[in-house]
Amino acid sequence: MINNNDRVLLVGEGREYYVRAGAGTLSTDKGQVDLALLIGAQAGGCIESHNGTRFTVLIPRPTDFFLHAKRSGAPMLPKDIGFVISSTGMNRNDTVLDAGTGSGIAAIYFGGIARMVTSFEIRGEFVALAQKNIQDARLENVKVVAADMLTADGIYDVVHLDMLIEAPHIEHAFSLLGAGGYLACYTPFLEQMAVVVDSAQERFSEVHTHELIEREMVRSKRGTRPSTSVCHSGYITIARK
Amino acid sequence: MINNNDRVLLVGEGREYYVRAGAGTLSTDKGQVDLALLIGAQAGGCIESHNGTRFTVLIPRPTDFFLHAKRSGAPMLPKDIGFVISSTGMNRNDTVLDAGTGSGIAAIYFGGIARMVTSFEIRGEFVALAQKNIQDARLENVKVVAADMLTADGIYDVVHLDMLIEAPHIEHAFSLLGAGGYLACYTPFLEQMAVVVDSAQERFSEVHTHELIEREMVRSKRGTRPSTSVCHSGYITIARK
Amino acid sequence: MINNNDRVLLVGEGREYYVRAGAGTLSTDKGQVDLALLIGAQAGGCIESHNGTRFTVLIPRPTDFFLHAKRSGAPMLPKDIGFVISSTGMNRNDTVLDAGTGSGIAAIYFGGIARMVTSFEIRGEFVALAQKNIQDARLENVKVVAADMLTADGIYDVVHLDMLIEAPHIEHAFSLLGAGGYLACYTPFLEQMAVVVDSAQERFSEVHTHELIEREMVRSKRGTRPSTSVCHSGYITIARK
Amino acid sequence: MINNNDRVLLVGEGREYYVRAGAGTLSTDKGQVDLALLIGAQAGGCIESHNGTRFTVLIPRPTDFFLHAKRSGAPMLPKDIGFVISSTGMNRNDTVLDAGTGSGIAAIYFGGIARMVTSFEIRGEFVALAQKNIQDARLENVKVVAADMLTADGIYDVVHLDMLIEAPHIEHAFSLLGAGGYLACYTPFLEQMAVVVDSAQERFSEVHTHELIEREMVRSKRGTRPSTSVCHSGYITIARK
Repeated sequence: MINNNDRVLLVGEGREYYVRAGAGTLSTDKGQVDLALLIGAQAGGCIESHNGTRFTVLIPRPTDFFLHAKRSGAPMLPKDIGFVISSTGMNRNDTVLDAGTGSGIAAIYFGGIARMVTSFEIRGEFVALAQKNIQDARLENVKVVAADMLTADGIYDVVHLDMLIEAPHIEHAFSLLGAGGYLACYTPFLEQMAVVVDSAQERFSEVHTHELIEREMVRSKRGTRPSTSVCHSGYITIARK
Repeated sequence: MINNNDRVLLVGEGREYYVRAGAGTLSTDKGQVDLALLIGAQAGGCIESHNGTRFTVLIPRPTDFFLHAKRSGAPMLPKDIGFVISSTGMNRNDTVLDAGTGSGIAAIYFGGIARMVTSFEIRGEFVALAQKNIQDARLENVKVVAADMLTADGIYDVVHLDMLIEAPHIEHAFSLLGAGGYLACYTPFLEQMAVVVDSAQERFSEVHTHELIEREMVRSKRGTRPSTSVCHSGYITIARK
Repeated sequence: MINNNDRVLLVGEGREYYVRAGAGTLSTDKGQVDLALLIGAQAGGCIESHNGTRFTVLIPRPTDFFLHAKRSGAPMLPKDIGFVISSTGMNRNDTVLDAGTGSGIAAIYFGGIARMVTSFEIRGEFVALAQKNIQDARLENVKVVAADMLTADGIYDVVHLDMLIEAPHIEHAFSLLGAGGYLACYTPFLEQMAVVVDSAQERFSEVHTHELIEREMVRSKRGTRPSTSVCHSGYITIARK
Repeated sequence: MINNNDRVLLVGEGREYYVRAGAGTLSTDKGQVDLALLIGAQAGGCIESHNGTRFTVLIPRPTDFFLHAKRSGAPMLPKDIGFVISSTGMNRNDTVLDAGTGSGIAAIYFGGIARMVTSFEIRGEFVALAQKNIQDARLENVKVVAADMLTADGIYDVVHLDMLIEAPHIEHAFSLLGAGGYLACYTPFLEQMAVVVDSAQERFSEVHTHELIEREMVRSKRGTRPSTSVCHSGYITIARK
């Protein structure tokens, strides 16, 4: 059931709106929607605009936060987040350390999977933004810490770094992992990838770096072909303790 | 704590062994390991071979089942499984329908994430194999059904198809999804992808097909370069209801 | 030496201009250039604008025609033209049949290499455009024929098709090739590629289809990474008689 | 017409043989072929083995030298050689400087296109091998020089480097190029590519680095899909003076 202040996705007429239940009105080209009516609504149910157009009420999924949540900077793409999840075998038994949080998008994906996620971020403005996004995602198992991950302690199953990584971070990540745990590092530039690999190879038993090139296939009346759409890429290094 | 008959990963001396706790002996080039000693052992603890070589005791993760579980046929690669997870935003609130099960590898990844996974498989020999692998993964929320997914009912958040897909499967998948739910179809061949896309576009609001090209970057004393290692690829179509 | 009406590339001050020697003036932000002064100039020499800015005089290369020649529609990219050249081993002893001509860009590349190029084009407006571009490239060994390649006769070392290809074109291409000659077909869509491959496999001894994914590597102060720039792709089928 | 000692490709019964006209016998599973009979034969003609099996007589093309010529080390792939040719607009008016020669494969491709190719190689064993291959290709416009390209003088339209490249080579290449000429550098490793780019950017007006990923599409009764075959990659930097 939707509560006051909950994030809701309204879908209809080929459009979608990322709104908040409670006082206020959403103006669409299909009429006004009274957002207070969302309080008490059921996910999957419908709500009508003042002129009778129906919108489906959805609880946002991680994919919706990726598209609609307020962001700052370039978050990791779902293809790369998915690669981290499957390459580490992330699951409900896991405690995950994430750094840097950024807008919290990766933490939202991980938080829907793992038992507990602790995400470190040293830039104050990102901490506030991420906390708001994570609260919107109703994830009580994700904690954002306004500190350098070098200050972290405890033992984790997965450590995920998406930040400017230097050798001490790799060294500390090693100490934070339990036996069989995984380190996943995302680096957009080759030079950073080299720092990660060189440092990880000194400590971890298996170190592999991959890049995923994502191509959309487009099918039209003229035929099927690869898209020419833009596709950002980074390098993902996976190391196992 | 490890119980009798549990799957265990023993790691040491640069080798790993996928064994079962209980009566029996593992022969390694570093001595004999009495597997009965694993009963009652702690994950992350150690066990010694008869000549004193130490092996770390790990509970296998999904990545270990991908590598070590008995398989039949070619399972989806982790890069593609991860893409399904992140493109659908799969999370702990989800009920997932999976078909065809195959060796159960994708079901094991999904079962560690979702609330409930029901996996349909029409080939009897795969049903038995998958059930064994899933039991080894200690996933009580994954059920293998020896039937065609066309016989499935209920409402799911995610439907994942890795089988010979025809239009009726897409049609039925649509009826099995709740509002905002996702269909993910894996097709190794372009002709099958076309069937999926054409059928999905008649029903679903958003349909996108991607291919992921995975490249390993290799770093040696000579320098850094893309690997020439083999990389199998399929097409993944994601459609949202 | 540059003659009246010759195409010339003027390069200077970080800019380049694709002009014609003869009556007329080029206006640049570095002054006016009297294009009549180009007549009799030497390639590699210099010419001055009215205020003394110097521009280098170059005879355009095929790469310049790709960038500057008047075009209509999407020509093959240099990466794909180069693949045709090297996959067929095109060289100075060769007679080449090309169809459809389009703006004549591929014919200009081939004409700089082969002994003789005959290019077929059924669309009248392209014939005129291509002839003008080829004349600008001063290639006397390239002939544009306003006809369907199905009407061609003679024996060629290489047949290159960049048009809507159907089985009869493949069949006729086979009859036009000498022993050991190569057919190269460019098809932007998968469905067209399938037609080409199926038809070619009935006649030719070796048939291979490739796609080239071109990625630019960008190096800045922040580091080195793959570009996200757009990259159009087609399928190139090479068959040998 | 084939002369004594000429290289010939014999093709028939789904096999091909790279032989030399003159005294000697070729043993095939379809009988013995007297190679002296090749002297005076016509390209495209036929020759029979002692039991009447017919083989077509072909003059080898550059593609045949790539496959059959004696090699040492890993030559550039045709996709990369083609990219150099089209990115530089190499044509019959050009003088080309090539270094290091290696087995001479790239020089054979270039020699069939350009007016004159001078290829530098400091390793004596490669010089002899390349000279033999180039002689077999009957290219009188290709000269192999047993020296460092730093000793070269003259003016070239294209300089192509496939060797361990350091800043002085780039600097010297710049001095060897005429206005509008192109430098093309092939580097298998990222670190070498960085050296090339940094040095070229100091001198040349346009510098671009690309990588070509070649994928074969395989079409069988089961359907069409990308191949999983191995594909070696290097970085190609093109700079224009």
